[in-house]
Amino acid sequence: MTYCVALCLHEGLVFLSDSRTNAGIDHVSTFRKMAVFQNKNDRFFALMSAGNLAITQSVKEILLQGELFNGKNLWTAKNAYEASAVVGEAVRRIQNRDEKIFLKAGIEFNCSFIFGGQVKGEKPRLFQIYSAGNFIESTTETCYFQIGEEKYGKPILDRVVKFHTPLDLATKCVLISMDSTLKSNLSVGLPLDLIVYETDHLETKKMVTLDESNPYFSMIHDVWAEKLRTIILQIPQPEWNTTQAVNSIRKMSKKLGAITVNQKPKSVKKLTKKV
Amino acid sequence: MTYCVALCLHEGLVFLSDSRTNAGIDHVSTFRKMAVFQNKNDRFFALMSAGNLAITQSVKEILLQGELFNGKNLWTAKNAYEASAVVGEAVRRIQNRDEKIFLKAGIEFNCSFIFGGQVKGEKPRLFQIYSAGNFIESTTETCYFQIGEEKYGKPILDRVVKFHTPLDLATKCVLISMDSTLKSNLSVGLPLDLIVYETDHLETKKMVTLDESNPYFSMIHDVWAEKLRTIILQIPQPEWNTTQAVNSIRKMSKKLGAITVNQKPKSVKKLTKKV
Repeated sequence: MTYCVALCLHEGLVFLSDSRTNAGIDHVSTFRKMAVFQNKNDRFFALMSAGNLAITQSVKEILLQGELFNGKNLWTAKNAYEASAVVGEAVRRIQNRDEKIFLKAGIEFNCSFIFGGQVKGEKPRLFQIYSAGNFIESTTETCYFQIGEEKYGKPILDRVVKFHTPLDLATKCVLISMDSTLKSNLSVGLPLDLIVYETDHLETKKMVTLDESNPYFSMIHDVWAEKLRTIILQIPQPEWNTTQAVNSIRKMSKKLGAITVNQKPKSVKKLTKKV
Repeated sequence: MTYCVALCLHEGLVFLSDSRTNAGIDHVSTFRKMAVFQNKNDRFFALMSAGNLAITQSVKEILLQGELFNGKNLWTAKNAYEASAVVGEAVRRIQNRDEKIFLKAGIEFNCSFIFGGQVKGEKPRLFQIYSAGNFIESTTETCYFQIGEEKYGKPILDRVVKFHTPLDLATKCVLISMDSTLKSNLSVGLPLDLIVYETDHLETKKMVTLDESNPYFSMIHDVWAEKLRTIILQIPQPEWNTTQAVNSIRKMSKKLGAITVNQKPKSVKKLTKKV
């Protein structure tokens, strides 16, 4: 599996991907899931992928080669929307190439992408592209996308990340989101590719591949675990003996009656005698 | 969907279930997923279920009625292992009853259970029972089970809960695990059924159905969100300008080379002229 997450915020974009792939539990490898497309002073794009590696590598390859889709490629698309449509069309081209043989082999056409960046004259934009080549764009209300093993790392994003979250804080959040996923799911693994893109730069120097030896990531890993345990200890214990205390857990919901305690039915004695 | 979690610890057992069911997004209801079976001074069991409600209600019903499975029911099983086998056989009986018509209708026989408790003379024990009626038991190393929407609430359990965690702290943890799940997934909903069982009591008074009006749960909900944001702010920002600082994020992984920045291929200009 895979975990990739990207944010489109007021100050810019953040992209983070893991690098573990597995074809069965005994076939685990490291493959980069991040690609960068740039034309200095004009455009900067990052693409992250999840799903069948044979599909996602082929999609990346034909994008890199500058193949044309409806007369456009990533370097000639007028804006980020057109560029996202180029990625979608690349997915469809690979699907057309492979679908017959996939159907015969019973292989699902399984892939998904996060694509984002900036074209000069526009704001930064972020898209999630599905296996059918269709796509959605992030908004100020829903400013992040995840692909792959997304559930473990979602609660922390839901609680902290908003459109106006500064990039440094957002970077911390995606690394914590990834760290939680790494801890709970073996199919997601280091190293990680991280890109932080600042609005209107049209390039970035904040691009790093990190693993457990990275001072910042290992600090996040240790400090987060320790602080989580500390705050759980700080939260008061449940109070079972009174309904009056602020930490009373006794107050029953009115929406659902009390749990029934089922005693041995009368028939049981009789039934068991027969045995 | 559903989220249920149970812990089997040194001091006893904790069970927590939500109560939302949905058959499609426009058919959302509240159904209890927790059942208690007790014979005072002899045995105490709790059963939680996830999956197709028509299946899980039927399984619960035939267990409540004291039907015999290999000559045993929950009130006559010699120990918790036998009782868990009784639940497994009840699942198989419903499967036998329904499988032909399910096959015809294309319905999956989808159900899973967490079952645990104590029979006098034994320690408390906890089991996860699959739709095939087979089951596994928790251990001191793996002391919790989850069914349903388990991923959102797993990281907090993985970081905090151990076999020797006290019951009050464990109760906090499962409530936080549930709160994270509630926030990130609409198919899991209040009220919640919570049972805390203390070893050798063979009954419990710590049994409550709680919702947003419960002082303890609403405190957990508010305080947890606030403390999470506080500790994220306390963690240092990433330092991009030097590899020397303790919070430097610049140190590259040696396991995977740097991310390639792909520039416009030479062929692109030519190709685009043709268009």
